[in-house]
Amino acid sequence: MSENTTNEIPKPEAPAPDILRCAYMELVVTDLAASRDFYVDLLGLHVTHEDDTQIYLRSFEEFIHHNLVLTKGPVAAAKAFAYRVRTPEDVDRAEAYYQELGCRTERRADGFVRGIGDSVRVEDPLGFPYEFFHEVEHVERLHMRYDIYSAGELVRLDHFNQVTPDVPRGRKYLEDLGFRVTEDIKDEAGTTYAAWMHRKGTVHDTALTGGNGPRMHHVAFSTHEKHNIIQICDKMGALRLSDRIERGPGRHGVSNAFYLYILDPDDHRIEIYTQDYYTGDPDNPVITWDVHDNQRRDWWGNPVVPSWYTEASLVLDLDGNPQQVIERTDDSEMAVTVGADGFSYTREKDETGTYRGEASKGFKLGNQV
Amino acid sequence: MSENTTNEIPKPEAPAPDILRCAYMELVVTDLAASRDFYVDLLGLHVTHEDDTQIYLRSFEEFIHHNLVLTKGPVAAAKAFAYRVRTPEDVDRAEAYYQELGCRTERRADGFVRGIGDSVRVEDPLGFPYEFFHEVEHVERLHMRYDIYSAGELVRLDHFNQVTPDVPRGRKYLEDLGFRVTEDIKDEAGTTYAAWMHRKGTVHDTALTGGNGPRMHHVAFSTHEKHNIIQICDKMGALRLSDRIERGPGRHGVSNAFYLYILDPDDHRIEIYTQDYYTGDPDNPVITWDVHDNQRRDWWGNPVVPSWYTEASLVLDLDGNPQQVIERTDDSEMAVTVGADGFSYTREKDETGTYRGEASKGFKLGNQV
Amino acid sequence: MSENTTNEIPKPEAPAPDILRCAYMELVVTDLAASRDFYVDLLGLHVTHEDDTQIYLRSFEEFIHHNLVLTKGPVAAAKAFAYRVRTPEDVDRAEAYYQELGCRTERRADGFVRGIGDSVRVEDPLGFPYEFFHEVEHVERLHMRYDIYSAGELVRLDHFNQVTPDVPRGRKYLEDLGFRVTEDIKDEAGTTYAAWMHRKGTVHDTALTGGNGPRMHHVAFSTHEKHNIIQICDKMGALRLSDRIERGPGRHGVSNAFYLYILDPDDHRIEIYTQDYYTGDPDNPVITWDVHDNQRRDWWGNPVVPSWYTEASLVLDLDGNPQQVIERTDDSEMAVTVGADGFSYTREKDETGTYRGEASKGFKLGNQV
Amino acid sequence: MSENTTNEIPKPEAPAPDILRCAYMELVVTDLAASRDFYVDLLGLHVTHEDDTQIYLRSFEEFIHHNLVLTKGPVAAAKAFAYRVRTPEDVDRAEAYYQELGCRTERRADGFVRGIGDSVRVEDPLGFPYEFFHEVEHVERLHMRYDIYSAGELVRLDHFNQVTPDVPRGRKYLEDLGFRVTEDIKDEAGTTYAAWMHRKGTVHDTALTGGNGPRMHHVAFSTHEKHNIIQICDKMGALRLSDRIERGPGRHGVSNAFYLYILDPDDHRIEIYTQDYYTGDPDNPVITWDVHDNQRRDWWGNPVVPSWYTEASLVLDLDGNPQQVIERTDDSEMAVTVGADGFSYTREKDETGTYRGEASKGFKLGNQV
Ligand SMILES: [Ca+2]
Ligand SMILES: [Fe+2]
Ligand SMILES: [Fe+2]
Ligand SMILES: [Fe+2]
Ligand SMILES: [Fe+2]
Repeated sequence: MSENTTNEIPKPEAPAPDILRCAYMELVVTDLAASRDFYVDLLGLHVTHEDDTQIYLRSFEEFIHHNLVLTKGPVAAAKAFAYRVRTPEDVDRAEAYYQELGCRTERRADGFVRGIGDSVRVEDPLGFPYEFFHEVEHVERLHMRYDIYSAGELVRLDHFNQVTPDVPRGRKYLEDLGFRVTEDIKDEAGTTYAAWMHRKGTVHDTALTGGNGPRMHHVAFSTHEKHNIIQICDKMGALRLSDRIERGPGRHGVSNAFYLYILDPDDHRIEIYTQDYYTGDPDNPVITWDVHDNQRRDWWGNPVVPSWYTEASLVLDLDGNPQQVIERTDDSEMAVTVGADGFSYTREKDETGTYRGEASKGFKLGNQV
Repeated sequence: MSENTTNEIPKPEAPAPDILRCAYMELVVTDLAASRDFYVDLLGLHVTHEDDTQIYLRSFEEFIHHNLVLTKGPVAAAKAFAYRVRTPEDVDRAEAYYQELGCRTERRADGFVRGIGDSVRVEDPLGFPYEFFHEVEHVERLHMRYDIYSAGELVRLDHFNQVTPDVPRGRKYLEDLGFRVTEDIKDEAGTTYAAWMHRKGTVHDTALTGGNGPRMHHVAFSTHEKHNIIQICDKMGALRLSDRIERGPGRHGVSNAFYLYILDPDDHRIEIYTQDYYTGDPDNPVITWDVHDNQRRDWWGNPVVPSWYTEASLVLDLDGNPQQVIERTDDSEMAVTVGADGFSYTREKDETGTYRGEASKGFKLGNQV
Repeated sequence: MSENTTNEIPKPEAPAPDILRCAYMELVVTDLAASRDFYVDLLGLHVTHEDDTQIYLRSFEEFIHHNLVLTKGPVAAAKAFAYRVRTPEDVDRAEAYYQELGCRTERRADGFVRGIGDSVRVEDPLGFPYEFFHEVEHVERLHMRYDIYSAGELVRLDHFNQVTPDVPRGRKYLEDLGFRVTEDIKDEAGTTYAAWMHRKGTVHDTALTGGNGPRMHHVAFSTHEKHNIIQICDKMGALRLSDRIERGPGRHGVSNAFYLYILDPDDHRIEIYTQDYYTGDPDNPVITWDVHDNQRRDWWGNPVVPSWYTEASLVLDLDGNPQQVIERTDDSEMAVTVGADGFSYTREKDETGTYRGEASKGFKLGNQV
Repeated sequence: MSENTTNEIPKPEAPAPDILRCAYMELVVTDLAASRDFYVDLLGLHVTHEDDTQIYLRSFEEFIHHNLVLTKGPVAAAKAFAYRVRTPEDVDRAEAYYQELGCRTERRADGFVRGIGDSVRVEDPLGFPYEFFHEVEHVERLHMRYDIYSAGELVRLDHFNQVTPDVPRGRKYLEDLGFRVTEDIKDEAGTTYAAWMHRKGTVHDTALTGGNGPRMHHVAFSTHEKHNIIQICDKMGALRLSDRIERGPGRHGVSNAFYLYILDPDDHRIEIYTQDYYTGDPDNPVITWDVHDNQRRDWWGNPVVPSWYTEASLVLDLDGNPQQVIERTDDSEMAVTVGADGFSYTREKDETGTYRGEASKGFKLGNQV
């Protein structure tokens, strides 16, 4: 059982870097023009720089160079999960920290991408390509540029979400790195299905979703209000892209945020997210959800589409090759909630609100996944 | 085929009454206290009058006595679909009109329910209990009572929706009665699956949904904004009633409205609805949707839950007995779109956005209905 | 006193045309490019046609050719207040109706502007250039084109507002023409300061504001939600055009709508408006507001800027010359509410909420108007 | 001139406490029942505890015991501006820090109010009663209790605002204490009119407003969306309390937040606030506004009501006596912007958007304050 894992990641003696926040993701996309249609024309992210191989994008309220880098490449994948750290010295700390962990690291004084200075990229113990940087080019913060504010405007990068087989193992590693857990999903036997953890005082900067990994589950941008998210759906309908709306919109149980999941041309999953809550106090209460609570992932009980559980993007090692995906051996959240052996309830101990062997609301999980 | 129906309802010589709008529905409920929890405590409708057997409810902006009457009874059913007519004489016209149609009618100078004066109820040619009235008690219009405005406030009664086997037959009858069609759903063979028709200048005062009938599919109330509907979902989640959210929220294709379907304690279906469009010009363009267009009922392509197609409330005859339900013989919308013999597309002629034998987005229609 | 006016406009024997709704306004503007910046770039109205002398604009949900015509000319003015009538024959009726009133009329089988067929323009008894038409070119209704939906999208033309010296005289004339009053502002002595009247089942298709006239006070477009109006303010701030926001945003007392008044480059006043209420029943209760009620024009008690009372656009006669402006002799709303001889109250009979000789909330009416 | 102030507050040798956030304010109110009407019935804050002399209130998303304490007393005043610190030891640090500053301090192991443990209150160098605490009783976080979510729900305490004569002096002291400035208002001569500074990663936890002080300018609660703030206005209108809306709603220039200022029964000013931006990076760009920029305090150019500049609440010393108010000797923001010697512009260097000797939009500053 994962809770008694023997392959625990030890805490380094070296101090952890002081991470401010998730800052940007670098995604490899296979068709830069198609991706531009999606991120710029559909979603309205703002171009800081673009050339034949890359597009640098930022959200409405951002003042650093970018929140997303699209890099043309042969295999769609996540190339970097980049965190900003408090000081230049924290980059040194990050490098030392991961070296002590025995991880491969690469330091570049001029950064791996435009707009970023001295940074270190690592292949972390879970197999994810993490980057830590402090130096960054400041660009125009567009936060009052209402003359270019779109009806579905994305205003901030909110968080990453990573798929990993052993959630407690990953959680322990990230807690050592300085993240604090705000919410998680468990069952009565103690299996952990997912955990959310933060640095910046919101519900999360990243989350771990139990599953075959390392893979990138999604990257999330936030809007000001709920109607902005509805507009993105409406616009996708108008563009006849409704089949690229994967799940939602809905209200999360976990995080209490209003959400939407959509798919980019390479099937990278993007979440649009708004209105979670302040978590910056050190004793912020952790909320543990029962995996069988049918409102944990959608407060309205709308079913989670199977692909949301099973599909995710590859991640790259520092050579640019896809990391090998390792199977989750713990129970699958989908199997324990909607499969023939699973069940979900609306009201604990109320059989009239309980689903066995099928999804809620008349939908049955098919073999089409 | 229904388009060549031999049992067409003839147009009376007598002039049709001048119908203003759908005004109220009378619903028989089996547990008045449970219904009060739903309509008053959850939905926040305003009580004009209540006693041991009935509750009279109105929406925030209404000035007539009520928009909904809940009457305690042994069998859950719709007892009256009541329309307000322009003048007292229009009640006479309605009576004569239905008598010429050979329908059973009942006239009551003091009304069938409180707050309503001279009215006529009829068993209409489709088997529905229709009422026509003009005289009505005025009550306080609460439209500026923001001191009692709830976060999910229902501000108007918007429309009825009726299930009937032969939609073209019903449509012709309602057009003769003065309704104008705004939108409908058809297939390439000419089968009509549903039609929306109005008197008051919105998309509809009532709609016909093809299916076994006569049955009451739903009654719809409107909110000011979309977030009010989201709040109703959030509140149902907080009350652990998410399993009573049947479908949505979503954006309709037909009508362009933002919608939600929920179920009352007797499984009467209530729609919450906002932001359709003005249709009051006589040449308002009719929009015909292809039944295979997967965005027709949900602009975001989210699947229609099977129960939404199959379940509906009984309707009563003038003696208070349930009307016999007659099976639809035309194709079923569910069968032609999601069943083994059906298909839906996101983009016409684009196979990558086409679903065959299954619902969209990874859900397969099960046998659990 | 105006209530006993001796110059009452007689009701014609001829039947009034059946007016559907306010349909479009033609405005003369002095700088077409500057107006285009305002109506197209800032407000996002959609261009149906444009050339060197005119721009035809429509709102998001409109299916007729236009809701606004901008015509280049030497003097900024309103050239036509155009109403759509139910049938082609209603244009004949309108012509006969105004001829019986002794008004100058002009009939053009091909219309006065593009997209409109047979129509009649009149110099009405109040001096306003009214147009009546039925035939109109249908264009694409954009109501589901969320791919071009802006954050401050204008979705419908809602109403006109006309300044006239003698409100009861004008009201009687418009009631004869078939309009129904929904709300008005009066004082205890019986003076009427303004009246709102409709055809289409909302609070108004046009309103009469007491003042020197005939002048065009404003034309109003509606949005879906309140945040759309806030976005227009935010955008005007970003464009450094905040001095073109004249009044609001706020909540009207009269009409209960959320509103904003802004000024175009020629000082034509545009209202942005949302969420009034249904008025289509013939016995819809009329709401009479006390002129001294400080919440009548702004429910939040925010002061009405003096220019809003005093400034308005000229209107043209059928030769294209400005109509002479006649002074109001009844009391001025501004004088009786905020001037040295006026007063306003928040709570009737509560001196602590009463303002004398000054505007509310610490602002005093200056001589700068 | 204040920038060269000779009475600079020296930075202590002792380390500053690690402040998490503004956490609660204690207000003395003269009529507890009237205050309850305002904070509970009107604003919907949630009661954690109440008795004959105090009411403890919290916002929707709060998990600590309270965000506001209303304490009955003879003179309306602010009794404590309370900050939560990261650890129990930070209370010791705070005590030592202020003792080194020569300030009067009082330590209470059981706290000064219910729900709070070990804390220290100080009379700070600017004369304000600051409290620092870590220990606090956790209570139910209501953040998903949508069953009690009101249409104008206040979800968080956002910030304090303090009036002090010498803003640079106060700013330097607060920067030493660990606050970081995000925005300020200055003129070309270097005078500072106001400064905003934070700990928790939003625009501010407190702000300094130049004026006669020490006084409490306002305390601010946030809502989820803009319509929640509009609802509060609408509700105050319905309760005929529009004269207690002092200023707004509007969009701030500084902070970019949507705002409203209202007055409680003792004239304590409450701001309702939503949607500022993330400021947690150490190099977050500081925005300096020109005091003559008419959009700095209202992005839409709506005038700031004079009382907003001149009125504020007394603050108490540790004996419960009002602190003496010292006059500002630097220029007054009101005088330099709207008075006879002041001016404001909409567009820098554009005379057509410039106001001299009067407020914008036709309102002149009167002597009625
Ligand atoms: Ca909204
Ligand atoms: Fe997420
Ligand atoms: Fe419906
Ligand atoms: Fe208006
Ligand atoms: Fe503030």
